[in-house]
Amino acid sequence: MSRAFNFSAGPAALPEPVLRQVQAELMEWQGERASVMEVSHRGAAFVECAAAAERDLRELMAIPDDYHVLFLQGGATTLSALLALNLAGPDQVADFVLTGHWGEKAVDNTQPSMKVSIAASSKAGGYSDIPARDGWQLTPGAAFVHYTPNETIHGVEFHDIPDVGGVPLVADVSSNFLSRPIDVSRFGVLYGGAQKNLGPSGLSIAIIRKDLLGKHGRALPPIFELLNQANNDSMFNTPPTFAWYVLGLVLKWIRAEGGAAAIGERNARKAAALYAAIDGSGGYYRNPVAPAARSTMNVPFFLPDAALDKPFLKEAEAAGLLGLKGHRAVGGMRASIYNAMPEAGVAALAGFMADFARRNG
Amino acid sequence: MSRAFNFSAGPAALPEPVLRQVQAELMEWQGERASVMEVSHRGAAFVECAAAAERDLRELMAIPDDYHVLFLQGGATTLSALLALNLAGPDQVADFVLTGHWGEKAVDNTQPSMKVSIAASSKAGGYSDIPARDGWQLTPGAAFVHYTPNETIHGVEFHDIPDVGGVPLVADVSSNFLSRPIDVSRFGVLYGGAQKNLGPSGLSIAIIRKDLLGKHGRALPPIFELLNQANNDSMFNTPPTFAWYVLGLVLKWIRAEGGAAAIGERNARKAAALYAAIDGSGGYYRNPVAPAARSTMNVPFFLPDAALDKPFLKEAEAAGLLGLKGHRAVGGMRASIYNAMPEAGVAALAGFMADFARRNG
Repeated sequence: MSRAFNFSAGPAALPEPVLRQVQAELMEWQGERASVMEVSHRGAAFVECAAAAERDLRELMAIPDDYHVLFLQGGATTLSALLALNLAGPDQVADFVLTGHWGEKAVDNTQPSMKVSIAASSKAGGYSDIPARDGWQLTPGAAFVHYTPNETIHGVEFHDIPDVGGVPLVADVSSNFLSRPIDVSRFGVLYGGAQKNLGPSGLSIAIIRKDLLGKHGRALPPIFELLNQANNDSMFNTPPTFAWYVLGLVLKWIRAEGGAAAIGERNARKAAALYAAIDGSGGYYRNPVAPAARSTMNVPFFLPDAALDKPFLKEAEAAGLLGLKGHRAVGGMRASIYNAMPEAGVAALAGFMADFARRNG
Repeated sequence: MSRAFNFSAGPAALPEPVLRQVQAELMEWQGERASVMEVSHRGAAFVECAAAAERDLRELMAIPDDYHVLFLQGGATTLSALLALNLAGPDQVADFVLTGHWGEKAVDNTQPSMKVSIAASSKAGGYSDIPARDGWQLTPGAAFVHYTPNETIHGVEFHDIPDVGGVPLVADVSSNFLSRPIDVSRFGVLYGGAQKNLGPSGLSIAIIRKDLLGKHGRALPPIFELLNQANNDSMFNTPPTFAWYVLGLVLKWIRAEGGAAAIGERNARKAAALYAAIDGSGGYYRNPVAPAARSTMNVPFFLPDAALDKPFLKEAEAAGLLGLKGHRAVGGMRASIYNAMPEAGVAALAGFMADFARRNG
């Protein structure tokens, strides 16, 4: 056996040096005479491990001091439900800008708890573009504006942060978390699951401007009250310690790789190489997204005939290229090229695609 | 370095053969050419891994077919909040029997969503006993009766299942999950975090009688609707795959050890040995719990003088006995002796306690 290039959409590839370290210290972690999975989250060793992850994330993303950084469970979907409960009362309005599946999911999980208005949507066009900013119908006095900067399934990404005036911008960054530098101060909330760019599944992160919490006026179960997690270093209850530890190692790896700027440049090169392979195939491969809205993280593409999908996937697997099947909602192929995907993986995929097109053209 | 005996209350010791297997296959899992952390939860390999864990849990606990088995996130605390939302409407009543800290927490997380009545509590006596069944003031027509069969902090355990007539019994079994055979059919819901007896933190399990879901009449965010998880094999959203995989290995280890009956007998022997060390110390060590309500899982004990706590903990650590500090709510010591703690660990602790008492008596 040997490790292959893994293009899964999430859970996704992790940096190999991180996995090697996890393996090496799995039985005995840091002189604790126990696995990191076995030690108390309240012991000095794990508390420092957790705090180091927060420090590294704050440094890598240049998170201002007036933001909480919360390490939570339940994925972005659970967080979207909790944010609705924590950021506003039931009579307030949340504006949504929809550019794909996950924006719709966030609406579903917000709607039962407050008013929702769809400020803009590219659904009519099959989520292949971003609605022009000047057409957004924002609600005056909205509690927040929610959008999904990168839509994993449709492969649509905002390359600029939209200006929504003084209303807090809430962004589900599950699939482009720390994929390049970002101005956190432009947001009210950045949130997402870790399992694409930052770690294993089972851990989610919320970066929340401090003044936004604790004003909803609802009677919530304490475990749903994000302020309780903020006031307890995300240990209001037992956290997912192993996932937190692995995330910490991934953050150290990103630092060693040069930080957000270097990672962002590499991600841009990877995306450029893959879109070049698609656009340079003489129409054999097709990406349906408007060029200005193409994702650097998730690249969906279609073959000339859906009957070729199976042989493509089978031969790709044999060539050591895994996880390329598109999401069932859209079909075709999808290559997820998150932070941990090396440039060599993208080059191998591009080479395979050219060879496959030649043999099946 | 070498591994020590770990008496942590949770996250807690895992079986060493499980950790060795995790370590061995960490880089490449089951011919997938990727870590188990990196593969899609919707791929055939992980789907089978997840299903095998459910099958093994159903077999080990003899769970009837009319019960869902859900693999979730957020710990028992989150689950108690979700159960209140899923099992009843806001005007219904939940009866609580309190025998310690975690029962109180469940009340806190139920109260905002429905009516709560404390049917019985041993708080006045410092949670050192179980309120006699004939004094419980159950509410006619209650939606459910909640109790905590084993209270981790106070070390109080029910050794029989209380009879509450036809009202569904809801039990937080976080700290005695699969610690011995149990008649699941006596319960409406058994739920708990995995991080004490069954796996790493970040995974919780709910075993729910099927007829209890979907009748609450509330407008819930879909991610809070447990029926959605039930209808999607607990993959309504991305599950904590690594924790689920480790739990599966722990269940296979329990099977190999002889199943619930054999584990239960071993746990009884371990508890008997430790209480004998306390009771046989001529009053040097003291466990405050009524003998009939003593926990087989969590054994709190006090030294004759709190000034001895620090040297006791320091010398115990040097002797390879970890995690013995009592919860801050009660002080003193606590030995958690879950499924993965070998009898040799308890024998080593008992020997150390006798030696320490001799030297500091």
